[in-house]
Amino acid sequence: MGIQNSTLYKYLGKEFKSGRRNLISDIAGIKVGHVTLAEGEIQTGLTAVQLDRDIFRYKMPAACHVINGFGKTAGLVQVEELGSLESHLVFTNTLAVGRAWQGLCRCLLEENPAARSVNPLVFECNDGHLNNIRRLMISEDMVREALNKADADFLEGAVGAGRGMVCHGLSGGIGSASRQVEIAEKEYCLGALVLTNHGRIGDFMLAGRKLGRQLYQEIVESEKLTAALTSTSIYNMREEGSCIVILACDIPLSSWQLKRIAHRAIVGLSQSGSKLGHGSGELVLAFSTANRERQGEEESFHEGKTLNNCHMDTLFRMAVESVEEAVLSSLWHAESVTGFQGNKAPAIRDYVERLSF
Amino acid sequence: MGIQNSTLYKYLGKEFKSGRRNLISDIAGIKVGHVTLAEGEIQTGLTAVQLDRDIFRYKMPAACHVINGFGKTAGLVQVEELGSLESHLVFTNTLAVGRAWQGLCRCLLEENPAARSVNPLVFECNDGHLNNIRRLMISEDMVREALNKADADFLEGAVGAGRGMVCHGLSGGIGSASRQVEIAEKEYCLGALVLTNHGRIGDFMLAGRKLGRQLYQEIVESEKLTAALTSTSIYNMREEGSCIVILACDIPLSSWQLKRIAHRAIVGLSQSGSKLGHGSGELVLAFSTANRERQGEEESFHEGKTLNNCHMDTLFRMAVESVEEAVLSSLWHAESVTGFQGNKAPAIRDYVERLSF
Amino acid sequence: MGIQNSTLYKYLGKEFKSGRRNLISDIAGIKVGHVTLAEGEIQTGLTAVQLDRDIFRYKMPAACHVINGFGKTAGLVQVEELGSLESHLVFTNTLAVGRAWQGLCRCLLEENPAARSVNPLVFECNDGHLNNIRRLMISEDMVREALNKADADFLEGAVGAGRGMVCHGLSGGIGSASRQVEIAEKEYCLGALVLTNHGRIGDFMLAGRKLGRQLYQEIVESEKLTAALTSTSIYNMREEGSCIVILACDIPLSSWQLKRIAHRAIVGLSQSGSKLGHGSGELVLAFSTANRERQGEEESFHEGKTLNNCHMDTLFRMAVESVEEAVLSSLWHAESVTGFQGNKAPAIRDYVERLSF
Amino acid sequence: MGIQNSTLYKYLGKEFKSGRRNLISDIAGIKVGHVTLAEGEIQTGLTAVQLDRDIFRYKMPAACHVINGFGKTAGLVQVEELGSLESHLVFTNTLAVGRAWQGLCRCLLEENPAARSVNPLVFECNDGHLNNIRRLMISEDMVREALNKADADFLEGAVGAGRGMVCHGLSGGIGSASRQVEIAEKEYCLGALVLTNHGRIGDFMLAGRKLGRQLYQEIVESEKLTAALTSTSIYNMREEGSCIVILACDIPLSSWQLKRIAHRAIVGLSQSGSKLGHGSGELVLAFSTANRERQGEEESFHEGKTLNNCHMDTLFRMAVESVEEAVLSSLWHAESVTGFQGNKAPAIRDYVERLSF
Repeated sequence: MGIQNSTLYKYLGKEFKSGRRNLISDIAGIKVGHVTLAEGEIQTGLTAVQLDRDIFRYKMPAACHVINGFGKTAGLVQVEELGSLESHLVFTNTLAVGRAWQGLCRCLLEENPAARSVNPLVFECNDGHLNNIRRLMISEDMVREALNKADADFLEGAVGAGRGMVCHGLSGGIGSASRQVEIAEKEYCLGALVLTNHGRIGDFMLAGRKLGRQLYQEIVESEKLTAALTSTSIYNMREEGSCIVILACDIPLSSWQLKRIAHRAIVGLSQSGSKLGHGSGELVLAFSTANRERQGEEESFHEGKTLNNCHMDTLFRMAVESVEEAVLSSLWHAESVTGFQGNKAPAIRDYVERLSF
Repeated sequence: MGIQNSTLYKYLGKEFKSGRRNLISDIAGIKVGHVTLAEGEIQTGLTAVQLDRDIFRYKMPAACHVINGFGKTAGLVQVEELGSLESHLVFTNTLAVGRAWQGLCRCLLEENPAARSVNPLVFECNDGHLNNIRRLMISEDMVREALNKADADFLEGAVGAGRGMVCHGLSGGIGSASRQVEIAEKEYCLGALVLTNHGRIGDFMLAGRKLGRQLYQEIVESEKLTAALTSTSIYNMREEGSCIVILACDIPLSSWQLKRIAHRAIVGLSQSGSKLGHGSGELVLAFSTANRERQGEEESFHEGKTLNNCHMDTLFRMAVESVEEAVLSSLWHAESVTGFQGNKAPAIRDYVERLSF
Repeated sequence: MGIQNSTLYKYLGKEFKSGRRNLISDIAGIKVGHVTLAEGEIQTGLTAVQLDRDIFRYKMPAACHVINGFGKTAGLVQVEELGSLESHLVFTNTLAVGRAWQGLCRCLLEENPAARSVNPLVFECNDGHLNNIRRLMISEDMVREALNKADADFLEGAVGAGRGMVCHGLSGGIGSASRQVEIAEKEYCLGALVLTNHGRIGDFMLAGRKLGRQLYQEIVESEKLTAALTSTSIYNMREEGSCIVILACDIPLSSWQLKRIAHRAIVGLSQSGSKLGHGSGELVLAFSTANRERQGEEESFHEGKTLNNCHMDTLFRMAVESVEEAVLSSLWHAESVTGFQGNKAPAIRDYVERLSF
Repeated sequence: MGIQNSTLYKYLGKEFKSGRRNLISDIAGIKVGHVTLAEGEIQTGLTAVQLDRDIFRYKMPAACHVINGFGKTAGLVQVEELGSLESHLVFTNTLAVGRAWQGLCRCLLEENPAARSVNPLVFECNDGHLNNIRRLMISEDMVREALNKADADFLEGAVGAGRGMVCHGLSGGIGSASRQVEIAEKEYCLGALVLTNHGRIGDFMLAGRKLGRQLYQEIVESEKLTAALTSTSIYNMREEGSCIVILACDIPLSSWQLKRIAHRAIVGLSQSGSKLGHGSGELVLAFSTANRERQGEEESFHEGKTLNNCHMDTLFRMAVESVEEAVLSSLWHAESVTGFQGNKAPAIRDYVERLSF
């Protein structure tokens, strides 16, 4: 739901209005569900973006863009080849990609009794700072569980795959936002869903303001961090998380146009201070729920329409705004998390009032 | 016109029938014109593929694929970004790319008085073996001349940009072929135009038959080449030419699908023995004359249809066959050329009868 | 071991001599192990390429090339980003990618007690014609089992992941070959390992000879296939398998050079008739066991040498030859397999003598 | 020389210190020269980055990244293939690419009497707002002139190719900055050169502060712009310029690593408000003057060292900082320019004091 209820909101320059929920689920047919594991040193989970059950039979035009490929995402090879999406999306921790893939594969096979081949899409971020990731607590069955829980109204922040995320030294996780636009007298929507686990604290920016060092000072004092702690903690850690960005819309677009939209996500990320660190895998998937392609050979041609390229700038700017707000929303909604080896990621809520903008 | 009138024809396995001319100009709106310079050490030229005069205002969906990028082709960056073609195509020698670009730019500006930006597409192969390429004999004005000469019936072989080409040790150059198919009760056409300057003689294959060594022996004997000559001549030269492949069709396709078709050209090339040598720049451009996109902002959406992906195999195979025959056609039509420093490229016609298949 | 003991061998044009075993394991440190499931409708398996146990700590320069991305391979995003390989390789069926990924992940974690992130590489082909693939018979533990069985001497053909493969209508699977070359007075080796599940029977070529239709006739007669059978069987099936190609060498190369080598695999594939069908996912991974990069920050710079680009042609041609022979070797070693729904893939051995070349 | 003498400087967060000149020429062997045409409706020019005369014989490792490929840059195909740079760099206006290419080609041929093939690199931005670009005033000979004028001390702002540039509604053009770092007890330098012609005025940011709307108001009032003017002028124009970024360093890096550095330029661009508009072609070239590769076959292997990947973050951040400052430097040094059809691009110097940060 973005950051519209937060004290951060007023700093956000907005050119477009948000959709009804200010969530990616403002696009009809998209729901999100979480399975969260939060006990002691286990702070992890799995999040599913459920497209409708016909996603395999009516594929959606899609494209991906790898900003920094230091990551383990599975399924992009086929999206890149065919320019289409035939699977729900699953997010989880880095070492659970196999289980999540297999669980999603099983769900897709159940939904499509005749299919002999499906292309599950699994995205990951590494929650090894807050979660004892080597204990491999994610199971194949959690994918079904998350899909069953999927709803158009869903939680953001440190839930699901977002549970153990650290973004700019703060508790991060799932964030979402959406933007609306009228084209040819019809209202269309574009939304972003992000899983934020990237960025150094010193680089943090809010709507352009460089607040990272201030924030760092506040946290060091407040948490009574000793020099020893700060030097071994997230506060000086490398940028080695990852950030996943999903962009969805209901505007008729070609895969080629979606690829160009995916290329703009980085501008939104950089507004809060991402520097695309070596160890931070940033990936983008963009898809449209319009112009779906029916599986099978019945029709020789698909009829459809695509946006005039002259209007792409509007979509690019909607994407940038959605991603920027979604990142802030992931922070705003994330509670403070303490986990593996006592590591802690503070909540921005607890500090934002103390900052001078 | 392919090799249908040649003794090579019977060895060609064909799954599809050829278009009327068996040339890329079987696709309506495509014409080809040459300017040839053939005197002494100057054996070079320029070839233009003329699309209709509206190409800038009604752009065509297009995609390129760089098989081996050791080349100087100009204009692909924008094709790759936008997935569209807004320019005629020009082919010339490696060191004339600038002149050809500028000449094509001037033609496009004349045709479009309001345009402030155009994207000329210039492809090149290096004819420095037969042509004193450093004399820079190509001028900007030759582009207009070649466009003016463009016709649906055009010569193949050692003409235009093809004048100084050496392919598998033989005289190469411009080649073309086309294939037809019926989809949903309508006849469609896909054609190839190639500029062949690649391959070692020892690797030459005809429809799968490895004839290179035989051919080499025949040429060495016939031309009375001494050991000294063969060691310093094209007969042991590296694969450092280049091969340009243009694939055009009138089938409604997306740029994404055209990119996948462009990826198949290499299969056609390899049928005559290309090994993708280090120094041989192989590039492919594929475009469709259907689904043109009108320049400007009048319309918010373009209506159109695109082929069902299930039928892509048909187009892939038409592309492979067209490229295979176009390469052979470039050889079949090329006369023997003697040029710079007395270097000579023999014609396959003079040797093919002596080969045992 | 290639096809050196087969009747096919004499048709193979060879420019380079094979390594001692004529297997990818001629490169020191590479071993291959299989787990094969072959009972009734279950005809599947898993194959592991074991690099040494230090692969995570001493990464190898690597690059990939997606010829046709209609496939589910996992792990390439990071290889593409970093240009390095930190994992053994696993091959299995399309619907087992998740289990294989997770099993390989667990093995890598065991071998590297401090690692919090590893990048398992899993390749797949679809064996759904001969195997009841939806029964999901592959387990995570089979990865450890295959790695334990890994040996420099290993079986080819319908074993491991190769069990249920169909290549050009024949029983395919695992194939391998290698080539040697002397550079600067030192012997180097480049080898290929392929998993072949691609191609139509009608397109089959042996060393350039188009034998597909002949082979098809022989098989139809011999197997007493009725018209009904042939129309529903592999004999007219689409090209929808896949082919995985691994290229390894011990020559000091940069990742950039390895990427260019990976681009040449398609030439080898096309020699036996691959047409890169729509549904056939072709992927290549190339790596070198020289110039390994030590994990960690101890050293600011890595010292190393890389091959002069002028000599790349030699490696390109070794790669083409190795791939061509490896594909034939997969066929030559594959026994006839009958599995799911009584589907059968005949062995080329049973037919090759009847063909006239 | 960056913005160190400007009132903007204090807002710039710097992690690294600048090189001696704070110019790309802090890297030994790099010089820059301009030819400027500034009279009436002709406001254009050409800028050359001169590498040493041995650039063809001792190639530099290089890589490019196309952020948005709506542009006409020539020469990148070969850089992408070989990962090396063999040419000086030339920048000019969009419709002069051919002349600049040909002029650079001639210079390279003169410097290398034996070369039959060279790969000139020409970058462009469209100056059609301030310059009557269709008059094609750039000639081939201007490349030699610009190279002759090249110096380590060079002007920034509205000079050379930068003459007619408009960046965020302001006069833009050539900008440069550099950063230093010590690795293994040796000082290294990384510098950026940009040609800025991108961005909307409303999006302008200075070190994170969103000053665009304020700036717009000041300019409208100051220039007494009427509503009619602002609606037809650059103040509401689309983002359709382009921005070229060159990153050079003297740190031993592989082409693969340089590609990853090139990917980070966008973060620097976005700090001043670039939104990667549809019509704005953003391209990056990164190269290193270390690890040069000698042309020819004398050596089988090149010895060299490359930076440990663990230290890449340092270079990424140097690149981001250099690009951010170089963009501001292009604005800071650009004088107000009035040209074609009376169009004007104001200088930021005339407005910056009035802005409240």
